[in-house]
Amino acid sequence: MRQSTFADLGVGLIGTGFMGRAHALAFHNARTTFDLEVNLKLRAVADADAARAEHCARAWGFDRSHADWQQLISDPGVNLVAITTPNHLHFPMAMAALEAGKAVYCEKPLAVSLEQARDMHRAALKAGVVTRVGYNYQQNPIIGLARDMIESGELGQIVSFQGEFSEDFMGDPKSPWSWRCEQAHAGGALADLGSHLLAMARYLLGDIEAVCADAHTVHGQRPVCVGSQEQRQIAIDDQTYALLRFANGARGTFGSSWLKHGYKNHLSFEIGGTLGTLSFDQQRLNELRVYRSGAPGRDGFQRILAGPAQPGYAAFCPAPGHQLGYNELKTLEVRSLIQALCGANSEGPDFAEALEVERLATAIRVAAKEMRWVKVSDI
Amino acid sequence: MRQSTFADLGVGLIGTGFMGRAHALAFHNARTTFDLEVNLKLRAVADADAARAEHCARAWGFDRSHADWQQLISDPGVNLVAITTPNHLHFPMAMAALEAGKAVYCEKPLAVSLEQARDMHRAALKAGVVTRVGYNYQQNPIIGLARDMIESGELGQIVSFQGEFSEDFMGDPKSPWSWRCEQAHAGGALADLGSHLLAMARYLLGDIEAVCADAHTVHGQRPVCVGSQEQRQIAIDDQTYALLRFANGARGTFGSSWLKHGYKNHLSFEIGGTLGTLSFDQQRLNELRVYRSGAPGRDGFQRILAGPAQPGYAAFCPAPGHQLGYNELKTLEVRSLIQALCGANSEGPDFAEALEVERLATAIRVAAKEMRWVKVSDI
Amino acid sequence: MRQSTFADLGVGLIGTGFMGRAHALAFHNARTTFDLEVNLKLRAVADADAARAEHCARAWGFDRSHADWQQLISDPGVNLVAITTPNHLHFPMAMAALEAGKAVYCEKPLAVSLEQARDMHRAALKAGVVTRVGYNYQQNPIIGLARDMIESGELGQIVSFQGEFSEDFMGDPKSPWSWRCEQAHAGGALADLGSHLLAMARYLLGDIEAVCADAHTVHGQRPVCVGSQEQRQIAIDDQTYALLRFANGARGTFGSSWLKHGYKNHLSFEIGGTLGTLSFDQQRLNELRVYRSGAPGRDGFQRILAGPAQPGYAAFCPAPGHQLGYNELKTLEVRSLIQALCGANSEGPDFAEALEVERLATAIRVAAKEMRWVKVSDI
Amino acid sequence: MRQSTFADLGVGLIGTGFMGRAHALAFHNARTTFDLEVNLKLRAVADADAARAEHCARAWGFDRSHADWQQLISDPGVNLVAITTPNHLHFPMAMAALEAGKAVYCEKPLAVSLEQARDMHRAALKAGVVTRVGYNYQQNPIIGLARDMIESGELGQIVSFQGEFSEDFMGDPKSPWSWRCEQAHAGGALADLGSHLLAMARYLLGDIEAVCADAHTVHGQRPVCVGSQEQRQIAIDDQTYALLRFANGARGTFGSSWLKHGYKNHLSFEIGGTLGTLSFDQQRLNELRVYRSGAPGRDGFQRILAGPAQPGYAAFCPAPGHQLGYNELKTLEVRSLIQALCGANSEGPDFAEALEVERLATAIRVAAKEMRWVKVSDI
Repeated sequence: MRQSTFADLGVGLIGTGFMGRAHALAFHNARTTFDLEVNLKLRAVADADAARAEHCARAWGFDRSHADWQQLISDPGVNLVAITTPNHLHFPMAMAALEAGKAVYCEKPLAVSLEQARDMHRAALKAGVVTRVGYNYQQNPIIGLARDMIESGELGQIVSFQGEFSEDFMGDPKSPWSWRCEQAHAGGALADLGSHLLAMARYLLGDIEAVCADAHTVHGQRPVCVGSQEQRQIAIDDQTYALLRFANGARGTFGSSWLKHGYKNHLSFEIGGTLGTLSFDQQRLNELRVYRSGAPGRDGFQRILAGPAQPGYAAFCPAPGHQLGYNELKTLEVRSLIQALCGANSEGPDFAEALEVERLATAIRVAAKEMRWVKVSDI
Repeated sequence: MRQSTFADLGVGLIGTGFMGRAHALAFHNARTTFDLEVNLKLRAVADADAARAEHCARAWGFDRSHADWQQLISDPGVNLVAITTPNHLHFPMAMAALEAGKAVYCEKPLAVSLEQARDMHRAALKAGVVTRVGYNYQQNPIIGLARDMIESGELGQIVSFQGEFSEDFMGDPKSPWSWRCEQAHAGGALADLGSHLLAMARYLLGDIEAVCADAHTVHGQRPVCVGSQEQRQIAIDDQTYALLRFANGARGTFGSSWLKHGYKNHLSFEIGGTLGTLSFDQQRLNELRVYRSGAPGRDGFQRILAGPAQPGYAAFCPAPGHQLGYNELKTLEVRSLIQALCGANSEGPDFAEALEVERLATAIRVAAKEMRWVKVSDI
Repeated sequence: MRQSTFADLGVGLIGTGFMGRAHALAFHNARTTFDLEVNLKLRAVADADAARAEHCARAWGFDRSHADWQQLISDPGVNLVAITTPNHLHFPMAMAALEAGKAVYCEKPLAVSLEQARDMHRAALKAGVVTRVGYNYQQNPIIGLARDMIESGELGQIVSFQGEFSEDFMGDPKSPWSWRCEQAHAGGALADLGSHLLAMARYLLGDIEAVCADAHTVHGQRPVCVGSQEQRQIAIDDQTYALLRFANGARGTFGSSWLKHGYKNHLSFEIGGTLGTLSFDQQRLNELRVYRSGAPGRDGFQRILAGPAQPGYAAFCPAPGHQLGYNELKTLEVRSLIQALCGANSEGPDFAEALEVERLATAIRVAAKEMRWVKVSDI
Repeated sequence: MRQSTFADLGVGLIGTGFMGRAHALAFHNARTTFDLEVNLKLRAVADADAARAEHCARAWGFDRSHADWQQLISDPGVNLVAITTPNHLHFPMAMAALEAGKAVYCEKPLAVSLEQARDMHRAALKAGVVTRVGYNYQQNPIIGLARDMIESGELGQIVSFQGEFSEDFMGDPKSPWSWRCEQAHAGGALADLGSHLLAMARYLLGDIEAVCADAHTVHGQRPVCVGSQEQRQIAIDDQTYALLRFANGARGTFGSSWLKHGYKNHLSFEIGGTLGTLSFDQQRLNELRVYRSGAPGRDGFQRILAGPAQPGYAAFCPAPGHQLGYNELKTLEVRSLIQALCGANSEGPDFAEALEVERLATAIRVAAKEMRWVKVSDI
């Protein structure tokens, strides 16, 4: 599954919802924007609805369609399988693709249980293929700058992390039940939103050793569907808070909520070091707020705008202030995946990393349930 | 040049620089993202460098390439000619395309002189085809919200406009001379940046009747090229300020500078009405700041995030806070153009509107030169 | 100690440092700004340095001075004793004043140990006098608005609190040891800064039932004095983080740090309810950020400026946007204290409340030391 | 009128409205906060209402009161006359005080006509006393930092100024007529608000040589009093915009409005130099926003918080982030005035400077009326 293996790289995409189209755009735009090392071919789209599969394949520039995702995996023209289906389908699809020796690009969360995630990681190791999980926010060039600042020591020793991922789409108690309200589908604020933040925390600061947490179901019942009088009992977390201890010694707080009014995509964090502080909010994804100790009365927090100085940006915009959008983070993710497939030492969360994120989320869940500190490696 | 005329719409793209690729992405993504009314075909790319033309055509998914832009215009498969070349080439290319009865999608500024702009407008009228000029910032869904607020009377009678488009890429006196420093190439802060703001002011508030202005060359000479000791005399405006009188009675100020340090793409404005105020900065293109009179001690400026409530947004992102990027404004521009080509009453700046922008910029130039108020209709 | 007891209210001030002068200004300005119910008399200043005591008494408009604080307490003209000395002196001074039947206005923290705080509370109950502790940030008119919004139900049921009080004055490891580094003097980030935030959390949301926490000494040694090579071992917390469970059901996080670079007086919090969210940062003490659910695509966080609509503000400034400063919060505190002395049902933290703050801080300290959840009422 | 002249400096205050009390507080607090070079005595308060004069004198700590302002001026204990009455009274009071050889501290605007201002300036020269006009915003320590940055060349050559002073207290057309609507009382947005901004522009950048302007009456009639159906015709400017040419070569824009909704005390400006940019908004008076050219991708606008590093601040607050309020700018103004009275080379706007501000405002008025550029020195 290295460059020498194929002159062409054939992509098979499972799922035609919003995320399916986002992948389709990202594959095309990665090809148009970057000089990729392979000949990227948009080979097939799969959707259980055959007509929809065919329509999307044509509209999105793919060669063919399959009504059966297993056919797509068997398709000899497909080298890379992109999975954008609901969470509970990630496991069977990824396992089949790995079994077939295909590279896998799976949306987050990797699985709906830690056990599944472990199996998937094992299967990936056995298959020896490249895997990637869609923690796309890490691909942001300004996040790359944040990481550089941390790794270069520019902020000194890192001592604190305070992160929060809040949205408000479940803020209204009349927002109805959905699969997102079920643990068995990796629902809840922690799994749905918090896992992005945990992945980011690990990406920037490395391992988290111990956690203590509090999970809270605010609305214990919700309508079975929009407008219904019938209520369904709900046990999932609407908000989860935690204390984090990092392996590097940093301490911090974590929050995740899907009912914090006013926040729409508030994946945010502040990282403190012995020489400076940086903070970020995904709602302004092209900005990094940085403070570096300076002359008294002359220093202050600075807003750095994403620009061509950060790798990846210049492919999309000629100057700072023009701004990347959400979809371009996806394009950067695809490019990073292609680089990995071509043998480059490309960073990006693979199944091994996604397993660690799941382990961490599970540790938080256990800590909250048992109201005690939990060592992550014990999970 | 209406939908009935063709089942397919063949696009020919002249120019392969940054803006050429931006167009290529926009055409593809408009097709993938929206259910267009036509069958959009990426037919041909033209560049004087035949090898580059061929390479780009292949990389960007176009059928063929031409080393001669006139061949592209004559290409029978091409119905729509997109022009992304340097400013002084807009005129001959657009005139040839119009002569050939093709629709034209031209980057701004329309032309390098008011005379050219007049000729182009006349030619477009004669050809009876759809034209469009790339004032892409108007396509922003949150700008659509701003316009709705103004037109609906939500802000009351509009009484003030204060706008500024500042960047700093010419801030360093060692930034060398380029064609942007020449009036004959539509250079200078007013033409290069300010024209975007004038187009926006007209889009939101309509006609401007009279102007008074001050144009200022700060750096009267610049190196002939990077690092050179040799200096070249420069007479173009580094910054231009103006007073504006709108036909609707509003008054205001205008500023344009390419040496205002810290600003990267600061197309910004604040519009005051008798019931409220709104402001916008392109550097945060997904936000609109709005104040509406409310209860004393309970009101305040509000930050509205772009989201699916604004037409166009949902095609790219599922929720507010995810954010559109610069390139998606281009995709929205292409979609609006396609709608116009299909006979929809699609708004968007055509050659007639671009001529008015040029007239207004010329009025400002005259007012500054002669240090007097100028009636725009006298130009 | 009620209005009928005295026509005049004689103030005795112990301590002439920064906070002593702040009190002196506040007493004078309360008299000038408000129509107080008593005839406020600035009677005496005490400082161990007799010359300094005398100088300050004259400069600040007090009648006389004492070199011995016990004389000031015995001074028959003094009805109210204001204590602004270092933390470890609060206990003996307040106890003596209470013993003498004088009202006491003591700077925070109330004491250097929970035991002292308990004794002081008991003594105040026995004396039956008015007491007040200087949690002055609660006096901010815009905080009053925040409390109104919470209590009126405007934000719905409160479900989350996220608070942080960070400064950076100990950020440099070369910042020397001081008494603030000693537990026995109520030092450390939690006691020095965090206690303000805990008092605020209680003021706004009421009792906190349980906590879990993590305390962290980043710099285990510091120079004995500025520039010294000699190091002193330090065991106090540089930063403390906690999870909070409120009696009203809300959950949240707490942070306190004195080495978070870039923050100077960052007493900040965000409170989420089922209908809206509000947030505040003491660094912009005249602003409240509020979000209330509204029409999709039309709502957003709002910045409310402090103004005459909030009680207390109009005494200082004629309109919003003029801004109160830190010292005016102190003036408002004095006025609230005078109201309490005159029998009004004036809110404000007395010794009973300060004891609860100390209990809470102690619970956090225990939770951090023993790495477990602690029920606050068990302390 | 120099220090040697008096050991004591006796203050006489005319007017007991909001600004009268602000002066009273400022005189007291300057004495308490700073080690003044003179023995400041609060001698007398004058108000036409004898009872009110007496009440205020007692409440504010002044020795005596006068019902007749001329008696106050004749009071041998009064060395300095502070004038806080309505605008049209500034002239007779200041003239009488100067005639009596007293120093004068007059609120802005100096007078209600340029002719008055000229006479007052001449009288001050003849009297040889210290004068001061209450452009208090210049006293802000962070404005001092801005000026230092400009004068030190840290921002390079200054090339642009964009300033605006907007409020919204006349935004509602039902806001009734008042003396502020009359030219004869120095009413209108330009005189009432804009003059503060003009004084600030001069303070920071020096002389303005030429102006062009547009003045606009939005609401041509207003109720004669609150709630009345009877309307009164109004000819004063609700908003005035101008272009400015500074003697130092900088160019810029000016705006002043009292009906721009959402703005409460928005005295704001942005100053661009060839090396950097700074901006300020009185609504956040403890912050300065600064950009200095730095490494690409690493620089950005910085928010500097006012703190002890700026002269004047430490007298009120121990650290940045605590914040000065509006009234403390007044205290700093008084201290600066005392320094001037003691012969120090204290900066601050005297009658000569206030005359220049009036000349400039008049030039803007003429430019707007005659719709032409006006050379300020021609006024």
